[in-house]
Amino acid sequence: MRILRVDMTRLGVQWEPAPDLYSRLGGRALTSRLLLEECPPGCDPLGPHNRLIFAPGLLGGASVTTAGRLSVGAKSPLTGGVKEANAGGTAGDALGRLGIKAIVIQGQPASRGLQILHVTQDRAELLPAEAWRGLGTCATADRLQAQYGRQCTVICIGQAGELLLGGAGIVCTGEGEQRSNCAARGGLGAVMGSQGLKALVIDPTDSQPARFADPQNFRAAVRRFAQALLDDPKVGPKGGTHRYGTAAITAAVDEMGSLPTRNFGTGSFEGAANLYGERMREVILARGGRIGTRCMPGCVIACRNQYVDESGDPIVGTLQYETIALLGANLGLADLDAVARLNALCNDFGLDTIETGAALGVAIEAGLAQFGDFEGIAGLLRQVGQGTVVGRLIGSGAVAAGRVLGVRRVPASLGQAMPGYDPRSLKGNGVTYATSPMGADHTAGNAFGARKEVDPLGIKGQKELSSRLQIVAAMLDSTGLCLFARPPVISDPQLMLDMINGIYGWGWTTEDLDRFSRNVLRSELEFNRRAGITAADYRIPEYMREEPLAPHGATFDVPDSDLDAVFEGL
Amino acid sequence: MRILRVDMTRLGVQWEPAPDLYSRLGGRALTSRLLLEECPPGCDPLGPHNRLIFAPGLLGGASVTTAGRLSVGAKSPLTGGVKEANAGGTAGDALGRLGIKAIVIQGQPASRGLQILHVTQDRAELLPAEAWRGLGTCATADRLQAQYGRQCTVICIGQAGELLLGGAGIVCTGEGEQRSNCAARGGLGAVMGSQGLKALVIDPTDSQPARFADPQNFRAAVRRFAQALLDDPKVGPKGGTHRYGTAAITAAVDEMGSLPTRNFGTGSFEGAANLYGERMREVILARGGRIGTRCMPGCVIACRNQYVDESGDPIVGTLQYETIALLGANLGLADLDAVARLNALCNDFGLDTIETGAALGVAIEAGLAQFGDFEGIAGLLRQVGQGTVVGRLIGSGAVAAGRVLGVRRVPASLGQAMPGYDPRSLKGNGVTYATSPMGADHTAGNAFGARKEVDPLGIKGQKELSSRLQIVAAMLDSTGLCLFARPPVISDPQLMLDMINGIYGWGWTTEDLDRFSRNVLRSELEFNRRAGITAADYRIPEYMREEPLAPHGATFDVPDSDLDAVFEGL
Repeated sequence: MRILRVDMTRLGVQWEPAPDLYSRLGGRALTSRLLLEECPPGCDPLGPHNRLIFAPGLLGGASVTTAGRLSVGAKSPLTGGVKEANAGGTAGDALGRLGIKAIVIQGQPASRGLQILHVTQDRAELLPAEAWRGLGTCATADRLQAQYGRQCTVICIGQAGELLLGGAGIVCTGEGEQRSNCAARGGLGAVMGSQGLKALVIDPTDSQPARFADPQNFRAAVRRFAQALLDDPKVGPKGGTHRYGTAAITAAVDEMGSLPTRNFGTGSFEGAANLYGERMREVILARGGRIGTRCMPGCVIACRNQYVDESGDPIVGTLQYETIALLGANLGLADLDAVARLNALCNDFGLDTIETGAALGVAIEAGLAQFGDFEGIAGLLRQVGQGTVVGRLIGSGAVAAGRVLGVRRVPASLGQAMPGYDPRSLKGNGVTYATSPMGADHTAGNAFGARKEVDPLGIKGQKELSSRLQIVAAMLDSTGLCLFARPPVISDPQLMLDMINGIYGWGWTTEDLDRFSRNVLRSELEFNRRAGITAADYRIPEYMREEPLAPHGATFDVPDSDLDAVFEGL
Repeated sequence: MRILRVDMTRLGVQWEPAPDLYSRLGGRALTSRLLLEECPPGCDPLGPHNRLIFAPGLLGGASVTTAGRLSVGAKSPLTGGVKEANAGGTAGDALGRLGIKAIVIQGQPASRGLQILHVTQDRAELLPAEAWRGLGTCATADRLQAQYGRQCTVICIGQAGELLLGGAGIVCTGEGEQRSNCAARGGLGAVMGSQGLKALVIDPTDSQPARFADPQNFRAAVRRFAQALLDDPKVGPKGGTHRYGTAAITAAVDEMGSLPTRNFGTGSFEGAANLYGERMREVILARGGRIGTRCMPGCVIACRNQYVDESGDPIVGTLQYETIALLGANLGLADLDAVARLNALCNDFGLDTIETGAALGVAIEAGLAQFGDFEGIAGLLRQVGQGTVVGRLIGSGAVAAGRVLGVRRVPASLGQAMPGYDPRSLKGNGVTYATSPMGADHTAGNAFGARKEVDPLGIKGQKELSSRLQIVAAMLDSTGLCLFARPPVISDPQLMLDMINGIYGWGWTTEDLDRFSRNVLRSELEFNRRAGITAADYRIPEYMREEPLAPHGATFDVPDSDLDAVFEGL
C-alpha cells in the first residue's frame, strides 16, 4: 500500500510506501492520525500547513458491499479542530483498487491558479485548471468524465470551495450518473479551495487485482455480511431504508418532537407529512423518477432515489433526511419540490446542505427572507454561486451568519451546525453534538436508533449511549462501511474481524478492533486539545439549555459533568 | 460607595452598598473582578447572563487631572473572554461624584424595546426609548442633553450596537461638545445593544462633595501630579502630545516600519507624511479648527483637536493616531480629510475605528473596494448605518470579515483587530497583542515608548517588557488615569499612593499597589481560562510569523515559549 503526496507549493507529486505507523489504519483512523502526526494543531486551517487527506477505509477496494466510502480529513475551518467527513460514491473503491492508502494534499501555490490532480495506476500529475474556475460540481464532473472517461471517479469542489466558504464540502461521483455524494461537513471544500485544487480524477482502469491474506475466509465473510443485510428487516429490500432511503425516519423524528422547524424554533412541523419518506416515494414513482438506486456498485441496500419534477426531469438525487429536515422543516418549507431544488443548488455549488440549511434558518430569523417563502430563500442561496457578500455569508455557515446578523439562536456546537435532530428532545444526540471531536454531527454517534432503549427526553443513560455510539461510528468510518450497514456488524462482531483479517491477515480479535476504534477518538481528542479546544467548547448553545422546545417543553439539561465524562473510560 | 444594579429582564433598578470584595477596586480592576464573580465564563456574550459594567477608576470623581476615565467591562463577543475598554469624557467623573462604584447592567428584556437609564444623585430609572432606535450617537447625545440638560453625561450606542455588531463600541460625551470618547474595543456596544439599553444619562448635579481620608496630603499629591505633567517635556504644554495629540507618533511609527499599510501589507506608507501629526496641526490651524481641547475638565495635557473641513466646519474631534493608522495608511488613504470623514462615520454609528479600519482593510483585500479609493471605502462604511449585510459584515470586525470573505491575512489576536503597530517590527507590541487577556490591544501594554530601550526588531527582552507594561496598564486602567499621564506616576510611585491613600486612607505601599495591579491580570487570565481560552489562542496569526514585512523583512519570530512565559512570575 502506498501514499500519494501532492505538494501544491511546488506543484509536484510523490509516491511513498505507507509508513508502519499508518499501515493498520484506514479511513477516518488514518486521516485523523495523519493529521495528529503532520498537521500543526494551531495552524490556520486555510493556510499552507493544513493537510487534506483522502483515504479509503480498511475494506476499500475489496468489493465488500457498502464498504467503498471515502474518508476526507483536514483541520476544519469551522470547528478549528480535527475533521473527517466521508462520502459514498466510487472514490473509496477506486483508491483502494489502486492500492492507495491515502492521498495527502499539502502546501499552497504562490499564485492562485487552480489545478486538477489526475491519478492512474502508474501515474499522478497536476494539470493546470484555471479555466475550470467558477464551474459547479455537476459541470466539473461531467466535463472531466467526458475528457478522462466515465470509468473515472471525479472528486471536486464547486464555487463554495473556491470561495473558501465554511459550508463548502467535497463532492464525489458515484455509480452511473450519481452525483450527490458529498464529504459535506466541516468546510473541507474550503481547505481544498485554499490549496488551489479544483478536482481529483481517479482512474482505476489498470489497477491490479487485490491480494487477500485469507481469500476463502474473506469471501465467506463478505457473503455472510451481504446476506445479513439482505435479511435485515430495516435495510433489506423490504425495509424502509431501501424503500424510502434516509427519509424513512422523517415521520418518526417529527412525531418525537425533534424535527428542526423554523431555525430549530419547534420540534415538530405542521407540514411534516408533505416531507415524509413515504410521500417522497409516492411522488417520485408517480412522476417516473427512480427509487432504490445506489451510490456504489454492489451495494445491496440501494437506499437512494432520483427525485424528478412534474415532467419527470431529474432535480436531484438522492434526496435525504438531513436535507429534508434542514432545507425543509427548518426553513418552514412543506414542499419536497422546494427542498429538492435547494438541494440541487447546494450540490452544484458544493455546499453542505446541513450547514447551509442552518445558515439559511439563521438568516431568515434575522429577516433576510421569510420562513416558507421558497423564492426568497432560493434567492439567498443562489447568491452563493454568484459570490455576493450575502451569498458568501450564507455559505460560511450558521455560526458566521449568526455572528454577522446578530442572531443568538444558532444551532451549532464547536462551530458546526446541527443536523436534523433537535438535541433538546433527542438528548443522546445532544451529547454527541457537544462532545464529538467533530462538532455537531449525527454520523458521529446517532442516538435516534436507540430511542426505544434510552428515553430521548431523559438524562439517564445518554452519556453512556453517546460514548458507545461514538466508538462504533469511529470504527465504521475507518472501514469505509456505510452507517446503514451497521446492524449485522453490531450483532455479529466476528463479521468485521473476518473481513479485515481475511484481507490483511492481522489476526485481530474483538479487543483489537475495540482498541483500534477507541484510538481513533483518542487521536482526535488529542489533536483538538493541542488546538486549544477545551471542555468549555464541548457544549450545546446556551439558548438550547434555557429555551424550551415545543411540543415537549424540553431543554437540553444533560449536566456539563456528564458531557465532560463521556470519554472518561476511553 | 454604592453599586447601581439594573435588571433589564424585569426593567428594574436597585441600589446596593458595594460589597467588601469590591470595596478596594475601581475601574478595570472592578469590572474584571465583578465579571469573574458574577458572569458565567462560558456564557453567550450576547445572551442574558453577561454583565455590562460601568465603573469609574479609583481616582474618579476626586477632581484629579486626567483621572476621569470610565471603564466599561463585559465578556467580549469578539474575544470570547474578559473585556475592559475605557473612555475619556465626563462619565468617570460624574459617576465618581455620585458615589457610584459601578453600574451593573444585567438581563435582557423579553421584547426588543429599547430603554434609557437616567441616573441622578437620588434616583435611577429606566425609560422607554424605542423611538430612539436607529439614531446615531451624535443625535442621541444631542437630544438627550437637550432634554436632560447639558450638565448630564450621555453614554450611548449607535446603530452598530443596536445591530449587535462585534465592532460596536460605547460612546460618551465629554467636556463641552466633545463627542468622540469611545470605550471602543471588544464589541462592548453589542453587549449593550443585546441588553436593549440605548443610553445612560448621568446627571451629577446634586452630588455630595467628596470626603477624603486625608485631604491635605491628597491635595498636595494632586498638585504635585499636575505640576509634574505640566513640567513633562512630552505631555506638557510644549510637548508633542499637547501639540499633535496621539498623532504625534505617526512619523516615528512610519519610520520604524511599523505603520499598518494596506491591510498590514507593509510597515511604511509612501503617503505617510500627509498623515503626520505635524501636518494635522497645520491643516487644523490653517482652517480655523481647534488644537489643545480636552475631553474632561481640568485636564492639563489637553491632547485633543477639532478637525475641520476647508470651510472651517467641524468634521470630527479628536482625530487620533490609531484612527489615522487604521482608517488611513491601512486603507491606502494619504489624506487626513478622508480619514476624518471615515472617523466621523464610525463615531456616529458607534464603531471602533481600529476594528473597523482592520475590517475594511480585509474587505479591500477581498476586492470589495480599492486601497486609496475614499468613495468606495466610504460607501462600504456607510452601509453599517443602513444595516445592509455588507455593512453588518464590516461592522462585525476583521475576523468575521476575513472568515466570510475568505481572507487569510487578518491582523487580529484572540478575535480582536490589531491597532496601529505591526507586531513584526514592534515585537513588544506583538507580545502584548498575543498575550493580553484583552486580545490585540495597544493600551494593554504599548512597547512603542520603550523602542529605544528594547530593540523593536529583536526578540530579546520583549517578554519582560510586555509583562512590565501590562502590569502598569492594569494599574492605570483601574485608577481612571489617562495613559498619557503615565510618566510622573512611573518615575514617582509615591504619587499614586498619596492620591489613593489621601482619598481612602488605606495606607497602601508600593507593594500593595503592585499586588493590586497584578491581581487585575490574574482575575482576567482566570476568567479567560474558565471561558476555554488556552495558550493556543494567545498567539499572533500564522501569516505574520511567516510573511516578512517591508521595509525590514521582519516576521513575528518571538517563540511561543516566550509568549507562554509572559505571566509566569505574575
